[in-house]
Amino acid sequence: MAAVKGNLVVGQSGGPTAVINNSLVGVIHEALESPQIEGIYGMVHGIQGLMNEEMIDLRRESAETLEILRDTPASALGTVRYRVKDQDYERLLDVFIKYNVRYFMYIGGNDSMDTTNKIAQLAASRNYEMYAIGVPKTVDNDLAETDHCPGFGSAARFVATAIRDTGVDTLAMGDSSPIKFMEIMGRNAGWLVGSTALAKETPDDPPHLIYMPEHGISVDQIVSDVDEVYRRLGYCVMAISEGAKDDQGEDLGSGKGDVDAFGHVLKGGVVEFVDGLIKDHLKLRTRYDKPGYLQRSFASLQSPVDREEAYQVGRRAVRAATEGKTGMMVTIQRAPGEIYQSEYGLAPLSKVANYEHLVPAEYINAQGNGVTEAFIRYARPLIGGPLMRYARLTKYPLK
Amino acid sequence: MAAVKGNLVVGQSGGPTAVINNSLVGVIHEALESPQIEGIYGMVHGIQGLMNEEMIDLRRESAETLEILRDTPASALGTVRYRVKDQDYERLLDVFIKYNVRYFMYIGGNDSMDTTNKIAQLAASRNYEMYAIGVPKTVDNDLAETDHCPGFGSAARFVATAIRDTGVDTLAMGDSSPIKFMEIMGRNAGWLVGSTALAKETPDDPPHLIYMPEHGISVDQIVSDVDEVYRRLGYCVMAISEGAKDDQGEDLGSGKGDVDAFGHVLKGGVVEFVDGLIKDHLKLRTRYDKPGYLQRSFASLQSPVDREEAYQVGRRAVRAATEGKTGMMVTIQRAPGEIYQSEYGLAPLSKVANYEHLVPAEYINAQGNGVTEAFIRYARPLIGGPLMRYARLTKYPLK
Repeated sequence: MAAVKGNLVVGQSGGPTAVINNSLVGVIHEALESPQIEGIYGMVHGIQGLMNEEMIDLRRESAETLEILRDTPASALGTVRYRVKDQDYERLLDVFIKYNVRYFMYIGGNDSMDTTNKIAQLAASRNYEMYAIGVPKTVDNDLAETDHCPGFGSAARFVATAIRDTGVDTLAMGDSSPIKFMEIMGRNAGWLVGSTALAKETPDDPPHLIYMPEHGISVDQIVSDVDEVYRRLGYCVMAISEGAKDDQGEDLGSGKGDVDAFGHVLKGGVVEFVDGLIKDHLKLRTRYDKPGYLQRSFASLQSPVDREEAYQVGRRAVRAATEGKTGMMVTIQRAPGEIYQSEYGLAPLSKVANYEHLVPAEYINAQGNGVTEAFIRYARPLIGGPLMRYARLTKYPLK
Repeated sequence: MAAVKGNLVVGQSGGPTAVINNSLVGVIHEALESPQIEGIYGMVHGIQGLMNEEMIDLRRESAETLEILRDTPASALGTVRYRVKDQDYERLLDVFIKYNVRYFMYIGGNDSMDTTNKIAQLAASRNYEMYAIGVPKTVDNDLAETDHCPGFGSAARFVATAIRDTGVDTLAMGDSSPIKFMEIMGRNAGWLVGSTALAKETPDDPPHLIYMPEHGISVDQIVSDVDEVYRRLGYCVMAISEGAKDDQGEDLGSGKGDVDAFGHVLKGGVVEFVDGLIKDHLKLRTRYDKPGYLQRSFASLQSPVDREEAYQVGRRAVRAATEGKTGMMVTIQRAPGEIYQSEYGLAPLSKVANYEHLVPAEYINAQGNGVTEAFIRYARPLIGGPLMRYARLTKYPLK
């Protein structure tokens, strides 16, 4: 048990998610119940705000605000993309001492875990008693030591819904517009693009093709994959990662000045590249969607499982700190058994910082254009229940 | 009252919507109750399927299927983009006679209303007793003679939600990514892009700028508009129509090979054009979303008002036909009074066919970069209730 009494500071860092405020509220709720914690301070725009002493008093926010914040996407404190420099840490220590900060909670991804780790080490090396705990967050789902990351389940629910909806739209269009692409977030990790497979009820449902950054794919295979699906089903819906690679490991459509067969420069970005490629080679009408930042902010489709876990990791972080833990990140594991239940643990930040947990080979099919059943079993529970029920006409022939 | 007994055929045409199947189910439900209607046939992929005698028996679909279809986006019968040629009408008449089709219901937009009108005229000129009624449908909301079009309210609810969500995300990012663009459907009509304004709770909420096809805007104004908003608020969220025009009436970013100050060819499409423009002139980090076909297919955000109206226009079409009306489209009007209620009527197809109802000048602000209060009063009831409630921290300063 941490004996020291003092103030807690909490910040949000990196790309927001649809449930990241649940982690903030979890931190606040737990802190409110802790006798060791006096002030509950929020960093405005993360570590950069902290260095500038831009902090707010979270104790004064109303219970109602906190409750509605759980429905509200994006980082309510403001977030930051700033890689902390070595010389910044001294400044941070000054701020901690000046404000008697004894509990440091940082909600973020790999970089933020690195920052939290260094802060924990610095405090220890200076004999300043402070407990620094990382709260995992990322739609990319690429943090090590945890089964999955808060934010991912809701983003997965959104992209599965989105690919299904654009898929039924494409099916309805018939031959007037039979090919649809959707570009999905995840520069290095294919967890999110893989989750579009949760839209499938039968093997021939969209998405028919899924390309992840982890498995490079030749331009020729992309063309022949689309051709095969289109010939067999009459349409084709593809989910492609923004970080998809070719078979040489190069980014697809990386603005290398790729030209089509007519010498036209193809537009930048993965989905524009694939769109041009298929138009050019298969002479079919193609369309694409690029839902972009909706993937991480679409609160209407929060996964209930994700929402609750995001809240709990916030609570557990404060609990760990007040129990005297530091330099750790809260982790989520699956409880044994058929029915999905989460358990919480702690992992050393040194094992998490700057490491990317990519999709393992056994979750990607042999052709590199879809996911395995093992992936589906992994991802399914995280989106928090089935998608909306849709109907199809049986299409009885006329007598 | 139409005396003739016979079969009804119903089809779906043009771009699908999130509620178009409600119109189909409305047609089927009303037809099931009508003593004059024998067979209830569905055209597979619209008028093209009809010419090929590709029809299905809708009487045999289960009540449960029909109920779940009301939640299901996109055209369950399959849709078509095919402009009927003069010589096709003779073929259609043959099919009507062969199948004893006496009731023709076509769910679609401007082109489909033209087709329905010509079919009604042809039948009359040949003394073939048939009742042809158009059922309005379009997310573009550009049909004449009706206050609004089924499909629009749900698309409007989606885009308002989407701009709000990407807006809070952008605000959270602070200066690490302060400018966000979203491209919205509507090649000629700005109804949908204008509806993003329904996301605003206060005047400074996103979207800060809205550009419609109806009001051309100079490239210089776009730059100075973004600059002004960014300087004032620290971020800027823009909703721009895919059909936005410059002050010469030319499509913005129409692939004319526009080049930036460095001679780089700017990417095609409106949002890519604006993205390049602002990056180049204001040297700010910009991002964009292109939700594409999700705008018309995102059934999770059906507007309850839109859903019910889509259903009712289907029912009213069959009722009108069995009452002996032909060559008409069902219309929606607002009942007088403070509380929104819809009334249904009929308008001659000749007044609807091929006419585009654009956003009138009094709905667009003087600068051409936003909507007026009159637009908001028009559009607000159609999205079927307020968006989700979001919270903001009060941000009390530390004592």
